[in-house]
Amino acid sequence: MSTPHPIEFWFEFGSNYSYLSVMRIESMARDVPINWRPFLLGPIFQQLGFNTSPFVLQKAKGDYVWRDMERQCQKYGLPWSKPSRFPRTGLLPIRVALAGVNEPWVGDYCRRMMMRNFVDDQDIDSVAAVTDVLESMSLDAAPIVERATTDHNKQRLRSQTEAAYAKGIFGAPTFFVKGEMFWGNDRLEDALEYAHTAAE
Amino acid sequence: MSTPHPIEFWFEFGSNYSYLSVMRIESMARDVPINWRPFLLGPIFQQLGFNTSPFVLQKAKGDYVWRDMERQCQKYGLPWSKPSRFPRTGLLPIRVALAGVNEPWVGDYCRRMMMRNFVDDQDIDSVAAVTDVLESMSLDAAPIVERATTDHNKQRLRSQTEAAYAKGIFGAPTFFVKGEMFWGNDRLEDALEYAHTAAE
Repeated sequence: MSTPHPIEFWFEFGSNYSYLSVMRIESMARDVPINWRPFLLGPIFQQLGFNTSPFVLQKAKGDYVWRDMERQCQKYGLPWSKPSRFPRTGLLPIRVALAGVNEPWVGDYCRRMMMRNFVDDQDIDSVAAVTDVLESMSLDAAPIVERATTDHNKQRLRSQTEAAYAKGIFGAPTFFVKGEMFWGNDRLEDALEYAHTAAE
Repeated sequence: MSTPHPIEFWFEFGSNYSYLSVMRIESMARDVPINWRPFLLGPIFQQLGFNTSPFVLQKAKGDYVWRDMERQCQKYGLPWSKPSRFPRTGLLPIRVALAGVNEPWVGDYCRRMMMRNFVDDQDIDSVAAVTDVLESMSLDAAPIVERATTDHNKQRLRSQTEAAYAKGIFGAPTFFVKGEMFWGNDRLEDALEYAHTAAE
């Protein structure tokens, strides 16, 4: 039996299409190992010359996106409510995700954080919000937050975001399988398929 | 038996993702009537503040798109060759498509014109190119070109492009089913599904 290649999953909590993939990836991936790659989209957009999400900058596209999200969530059987603030900043939550990428709780944490933004329509970028989510998973929040906010982890997030830019990432979610880049939740199935066909 | 709603198919010959949908739509649609809606993307981009395709303006996205097109064509079993000029203008070809929207040859014409751009890597915006394509279909090209270049048909294309903008179209391909907008070749299946579920 051959082992499939891992899938790198680049996402951020403010991104609505990342929400779809965060909710779907673990159940879709089956035996494909997932390398969680939380990063910040804001600095990427700035380097590309945008001061916020293209869905805010381009009104026609933005209007469409919210209708598309409703339909996509219906298709996937996911809960959805249009956030009253968009894009929400999620610096602390993404630092926690990065600190937890190798923890068994990373997937569950990411789903709960995403649902806080895109289902409960609550802000996510505070110690209170992160504590809430971690405690809902019966985790001890304080040491995790402490680990997430060390200089080391902060620097790691900066490096991860620079790595995203260097890899050619211009949006989220983005997947990499064996060096091949796939952009958008619509390409999750293709990326996973490639993880299998590229197995050695 | 209920009749499915028609699908409006907004496309243009310079658009690479329109190529995928032009090639697929007739075989995918089955009993869903297709209303062909050729329009010009250039004036839309200009009204949105872009002087050319976003794939040219945003280098990272552009680089990705060509790799994505290779993979998508492989997935759909379609021929593909990256055009050496992008985006190609296609004013005369789109006027011909508009003049032919109710002709039985419209689908075949659009596929052949698209293949000229995205498979044969040849320019499309000349009487010679259009004549070539029409004659390859055993059609009498001259009267069709004449009909396509009347003031009436030119004005009709301007109106059609204004209508695209008024409907909120910001890219191609775009589909409408019963007033619901679907953007991108990735949504063709969803749009056709909706044409069936929305049947009365």
